[in-house]
Amino acid sequence: MSPVYTIFYGTFIQLPRAPASSEPKHVLDINHGALWVSNKSGRIEGFDWSVTTEGKLCDLLSDKGWVTISGDGEEEAIGEKTVVKVVKANESRNGFFFPGFIDTHIHASQYPNSGVFGSSTLLEWLQKYTFPLEASYGDGSDIAPKTARTAYEKVIARTLANGTTCAAYYATIHVPATNLLADLCLKRGQRAFIGRVCMDNPDYCPDYYRDSSAEESVRATEATISHIQSIDPDGRVVAPIITPRFAPTCSPTSMSDLGKLAASFDPPMRIQTHISENKNEVALVKQLFPNSTSYADVYDQHGLVTPRTILAHAVHLTPEERSLIHSRGAKIAHCPASNSALGSGLCPVRTLLDAGIIVGLGTDVSGGYSSSVLEAVRQAILVSRLVSYSAKEQTGKENLSVEEALYLATRGGAKVVDMADQIGGFEAGMSWDAQLIELSSVNDRSAESVDDAQGSVDIFGWESWEEKIQKWVWNGDDRNVKAVWVNGRLVHQRSQKEAKKSVVHSSVPILSRSWVSFLLRWLGF
Amino acid sequence: MSPVYTIFYGTFIQLPRAPASSEPKHVLDINHGALWVSNKSGRIEGFDWSVTTEGKLCDLLSDKGWVTISGDGEEEAIGEKTVVKVVKANESRNGFFFPGFIDTHIHASQYPNSGVFGSSTLLEWLQKYTFPLEASYGDGSDIAPKTARTAYEKVIARTLANGTTCAAYYATIHVPATNLLADLCLKRGQRAFIGRVCMDNPDYCPDYYRDSSAEESVRATEATISHIQSIDPDGRVVAPIITPRFAPTCSPTSMSDLGKLAASFDPPMRIQTHISENKNEVALVKQLFPNSTSYADVYDQHGLVTPRTILAHAVHLTPEERSLIHSRGAKIAHCPASNSALGSGLCPVRTLLDAGIIVGLGTDVSGGYSSSVLEAVRQAILVSRLVSYSAKEQTGKENLSVEEALYLATRGGAKVVDMADQIGGFEAGMSWDAQLIELSSVNDRSAESVDDAQGSVDIFGWESWEEKIQKWVWNGDDRNVKAVWVNGRLVHQRSQKEAKKSVVHSSVPILSRSWVSFLLRWLGF
Repeated sequence: MSPVYTIFYGTFIQLPRAPASSEPKHVLDINHGALWVSNKSGRIEGFDWSVTTEGKLCDLLSDKGWVTISGDGEEEAIGEKTVVKVVKANESRNGFFFPGFIDTHIHASQYPNSGVFGSSTLLEWLQKYTFPLEASYGDGSDIAPKTARTAYEKVIARTLANGTTCAAYYATIHVPATNLLADLCLKRGQRAFIGRVCMDNPDYCPDYYRDSSAEESVRATEATISHIQSIDPDGRVVAPIITPRFAPTCSPTSMSDLGKLAASFDPPMRIQTHISENKNEVALVKQLFPNSTSYADVYDQHGLVTPRTILAHAVHLTPEERSLIHSRGAKIAHCPASNSALGSGLCPVRTLLDAGIIVGLGTDVSGGYSSSVLEAVRQAILVSRLVSYSAKEQTGKENLSVEEALYLATRGGAKVVDMADQIGGFEAGMSWDAQLIELSSVNDRSAESVDDAQGSVDIFGWESWEEKIQKWVWNGDDRNVKAVWVNGRLVHQRSQKEAKKSVVHSSVPILSRSWVSFLLRWLGF
Repeated sequence: MSPVYTIFYGTFIQLPRAPASSEPKHVLDINHGALWVSNKSGRIEGFDWSVTTEGKLCDLLSDKGWVTISGDGEEEAIGEKTVVKVVKANESRNGFFFPGFIDTHIHASQYPNSGVFGSSTLLEWLQKYTFPLEASYGDGSDIAPKTARTAYEKVIARTLANGTTCAAYYATIHVPATNLLADLCLKRGQRAFIGRVCMDNPDYCPDYYRDSSAEESVRATEATISHIQSIDPDGRVVAPIITPRFAPTCSPTSMSDLGKLAASFDPPMRIQTHISENKNEVALVKQLFPNSTSYADVYDQHGLVTPRTILAHAVHLTPEERSLIHSRGAKIAHCPASNSALGSGLCPVRTLLDAGIIVGLGTDVSGGYSSSVLEAVRQAILVSRLVSYSAKEQTGKENLSVEEALYLATRGGAKVVDMADQIGGFEAGMSWDAQLIELSSVNDRSAESVDDAQGSVDIFGWESWEEKIQKWVWNGDDRNVKAVWVNGRLVHQRSQKEAKKSVVHSSVPILSRSWVSFLLRWLGF
């Protein structure tokens, strides 16, 4: 018998719903108690922050008429009772539940190139590193090459291991490989928007890697939409997203037709593209589209700037462009690690927020070197301080706090993918898209050694929860992500060394006893 | 019988000796072969890059008259032969030997605050976070408090685990705790310069944490020098370094007297301090020292700018200051993670190198959030690209390449601590201060899983060594550091999950066999 609910018990930390805006904010929403998720719907059914002790947890179970099932799925006698399962955060290791991270901009196809970009900037990086790799994911056949499968399996595994419960992915121009990415996300249970990349302008796409025409861009996009909607009709885990690469690689016809395609769905289909990443790119767009007043205006003229559009980068927007984007309700994926790595510039996030624009974080693998949203959180903070430093008047107003950057990675990202009521926090009715983080125990043994499995966050015992979160943000990594759920389903779990050890120890006498019995029988006893 | 030599076999990667200078460079010195270290001296005795196979390794051993000893120290029959031990890099996991990292600026005492700095900048950060923590390491007694021991054990363990074979440490004002740091570094075998912090200016030091007078600064410094020289008379592992905190916290008398103290040794003793980290600090120094022409001139007037002086930060130097520092032969510790985290600014490293100044990297824990020099390498590259982006003419000339940043972390750091002929590379006569790095094997099993112990670097099989090194720099962490040596001594080794597994498996029958013998004896056989 499967448990009806899973009860999560321990410390829950999230960001308040209030928007990040013009002033640095330092608020975490920290609660200790119990929260229960329906295993059927994958949604949060309720919570009780008065459950401060394990004793009160027992009272809660009793009051509700719930009986627990053990972790390994063994059944217990239940009568009329409702069977539930309990998952506890390890308090001695400073464990807590946190909303899953939302990566609003990541090129799944470029994952194998992570960290490989030499000293290039955007336009040369595309030609030298990116297009050749992406091109290798299709050979004209109906089957995706093994390289695509390997890359996609790996990027899903890595991002899940880093706590990414939802990703807005760019694939490549290839229909079979794009469909494969959707299949794999569905199989692993990672919430994902899957974008088949459109690029048909022969002047700015290589001959070996482009759509043969605007019609081909639309036709191939429709083919992937059809596949993705067939494997997950309600879009519960995966959904398509229309993906014109960026203005220089797309003909005006393809952009218009893709805009119309998006508008033909109800609700209109999500769109993602790049904008204003690098100064040379901005100049190129100005030259290619002399009749547009700005880069944002190019997209707007082709019907691509909508409330369900994710614009990646937006480093060099003009005030007019910010105003246009805000008026259309389009969203921005801020990709600080990529912008620093490719020398694209310092995105003034506070200025975007002040303009009322919704902002989330993107890793932008592999312009960004890391598939970890936590690294994007760190880089967003660092970049904001350098914006502040570069400002004429150094007010510190541009500084993003740790809490604001975490807001962008969760609540902000949820808004960017137009799911603010469904993911990014722990309210009743929301999907249980969450991660269980463990930091470390307080020096419970000699400080002389470091625990290989424990990660790089050291807790000394005097830290407040706010300080523990700061330590996590600055030195945490995938080792601190002990478990990840999407829609209530456990989609990643880190193996516990300690658990293994104890299994090993207990297995020795057991094995020995069986040897003894064997020997006794062999000896005729 | 102990082995006379340790023979290291596999791929060796280092940076060429040629200085980092005005143009971006992209050169790694990559060799495959054997290198041998005298276990008595801890120095490299020779190498042979023609030893390209294990067969040739056997030939080498035979030619040299060397017989191997097994890893666990068991003796073998040897006759007239010389006993050696062989350590191999795991080639299937893309292992290689690399020079140990040199951290030219790290506050050991601040380690527990790693990641905790809120949104502060330098001067408020010192008052709010740093001085209170440092003050807790002394209580007036002759024994360092437990908090100091815990912090120092941890920072040594963490930095060794990250491949730091040499560190220029700041301790606190307390003699017992400073001496303890030296004792612990010696015990663990980490090469370290140990600085007792001097700060006697009541206007800029808190009452609860300062030297009572300039005389006290000198007296207490002499006490730690005396202790450190008594525990390691030849300075083989640990050595003292004279450490006036920075100009605002030091009286002119204390700076002059500390300068004279340094000059009284032969060779003059090393000195370390901070310079020009933050604009407010620069303004403060100008106000406090109206008779000096610059911040650098303040130190120079007090005899503190010498060929054995390490100046940390140097973000806002004037051309005149660069010229003065170059003419005195003083060195700079570049601390990019700290400068970004505290919003101090973008240090123009290329400009420093062009001025002929020697530069190394510092983590600056805990202004810097990470104790990993590899993180400092990453941040140095990112910061250089943002300097480039901010420059009037965007030439890309300011960009540091991966190779240059690794140069700063090894050869550059060796020059900064005045040991260019002894550490930072793999030449004969140099100390074996090295790390064994392993990346990962090429997807030898399903890409769907990630190996917890393996780290975050994914190798797909097509990468050149240059590309593997880029991947390591951008996504590597302490999980990739499998072993670390200083002076030929193994000072850190990462436990091998695989190895443990196999030990466990093989131990089962062994244990069972002993049970069987026991049982047989018990049964009277």
